Amino acid sequence: MYNNKFDREMAASGFGSQAYSNAVQFRGGGASAAARLGAIAVLVRSAGGSQNRLPHTGALRYAEDAPKIPAATITFEDGELIDYLAKMGTVKIKIVLTPQTFPDAPSHNVIADLKGSEKPDEVVIVSGHLDSWDLGTGALDDATGIGVSMQVLYLMKELGIKPKRTIRFVAYMNEENGLVGGRKYAEEEDQNISKHFAAIESDLGASHPLGFYFAGKPEALPYFLPISRILRSQGAGLVQLQPGGVAADIGPLTQKGVPSFAPWFDTRTYFNYHHTPADTLDKVNPKELAENGALMAVLAYGLANLEQPLPR
Amino acid sequence: MYNNKFDREMAASGFGSQAYSNAVQFRGGGASAAARLGAIAVLVRSAGGSQNRLPHTGALRYAEDAPKIPAATITFEDGELIDYLAKMGTVKIKIVLTPQTFPDAPSHNVIADLKGSEKPDEVVIVSGHLDSWDLGTGALDDATGIGVSMQVLYLMKELGIKPKRTIRFVAYMNEENGLVGGRKYAEEEDQNISKHFAAIESDLGASHPLGFYFAGKPEALPYFLPISRILRSQGAGLVQLQPGGVAADIGPLTQKGVPSFAPWFDTRTYFNYHHTPADTLDKVNPKELAENGALMAVLAYGLANLEQPLPR
Repeated sequence: MYNNKFDREMAASGFGSQAYSNAVQFRGGGASAAARLGAIAVLVRSAGGSQNRLPHTGALRYAEDAPKIPAATITFEDGELIDYLAKMGTVKIKIVLTPQTFPDAPSHNVIADLKGSEKPDEVVIVSGHLDSWDLGTGALDDATGIGVSMQVLYLMKELGIKPKRTIRFVAYMNEENGLVGGRKYAEEEDQNISKHFAAIESDLGASHPLGFYFAGKPEALPYFLPISRILRSQGAGLVQLQPGGVAADIGPLTQKGVPSFAPWFDTRTYFNYHHTPADTLDKVNPKELAENGALMAVLAYGLANLEQPLPR
Repeated sequence: MYNNKFDREMAASGFGSQAYSNAVQFRGGGASAAARLGAIAVLVRSAGGSQNRLPHTGALRYAEDAPKIPAATITFEDGELIDYLAKMGTVKIKIVLTPQTFPDAPSHNVIADLKGSEKPDEVVIVSGHLDSWDLGTGALDDATGIGVSMQVLYLMKELGIKPKRTIRFVAYMNEENGLVGGRKYAEEEDQNISKHFAAIESDLGASHPLGFYFAGKPEALPYFLPISRILRSQGAGLVQLQPGGVAADIGPLTQKGVPSFAPWFDTRTYFNYHHTPADTLDKVNPKELAENGALMAVLAYGLANLEQPLPR
């Protein structure tokens, strides 16, 4: 799925759709690129796939070497209209923006351990992020990731299963505005990285999973065959190596060598809703959510009980 | 498609989707029904099929016998959320509405005749309505209806076809707020109704047409077989009797006995966009728009050249 360096890098930032990755760079870097050409403001056409007059928003990064000009997102439809009008002559647009940046305030990652029965000091992380972008309610981004991660611990307790290694639930704070929780976790656990056996994160909604992505040494792939064999029965038996990384919050752990995993979703509908007002609970299919809970649980349990250490 | 009196009545008001018709009564009459039960305001769940956080708006009719309480539409998603919260306890909602009703102002139907070669005093109307509901741009409701109606006259001129009866293009003004243009036209032409051979209106978007609806004497149906035979080649060969009426603006003519016609659309997507901010030009499929132009032209020409008068 990711065949070149650019795609791998974009994938490493947590985005699983190549088309989206190719489009979202205009949102992230468009303002500075336009400013370098003399623009006094920039309106960015929505990068998502929806055609429902929804502004699709998200992070923008101002470059150091360009003026910081006002920037806003507009819907696909309004972008088309402006493009049409511009072909007929000058288009004048009045932009009223009222953004504010508040000082940082204390917040916290939320962590819960289900202690391992044999190697309690070795950790398999199951995770998502607590915060959401502001237009929608964050049902897909990333309440479902939090939900399926909590589900792992719940299932172990319900079924009376005692994994050999510790399974650690982490709800990272502040992914959207700078990956702060994920970075802080990796920093605080820096002396303890070798005890992080694996990290899993779900942060691309909760549609039908095809299997999982893996960032780590290719030599580790054969170790996952027994896990994939179990997941195959629910149509989630594929494993895809994605060396650049698999999800945003666990990215800092991946870079420190922790074998990293993420569900491989069918993302055809995800970018219709993500970072729009329409990211609401009704978009979550309960059956597919349950499929993801099962995938996360099987994957986490399989890793927690692996006989050998993973090559890293 | 319309098997009972209720559905026929709703169809007569110009709505071609049974599910929509059944739902939209809550928007039209919900405020008064709630007021009779003591409500002080009403929020109506969107009647359209979209799940993209779009408020679906439209006409509301206050009954004479109930207090006129504030009323607003909310999205499907917000309706679901309020329903969920209400099951847990009292939900308090602050509603800020700023509607204004301005005095009536002069406006005009736009009419153009392509004179008939043999019976110029007999008229076949091709029509749509000029105005649109305010959230979207009215591409589907009803710019496409205007477009395909104008296309009829354009095609006749381009192809050098001279219909025997006059083909009259009518762009009705103010359909959305009380059907004023349609009513006025029928009123002004009251002495001339017998010269109105037929009336066609397109007012349900421009998706693939399956054929056409007909409101009039069932004995007239065999007269349309040659027309349907031509339309069959583009998959639009069906004719459906719909005695209550086929479209809003020509409804007053239908009631005076003018044989009335409307394209029979595949409306699966229409109510996702209609009366929402997403009713924009990109929703119009050029190929399907052309199919409707062809249907309107074939139907109008066939009627304008019919040998016999239609039973009425």
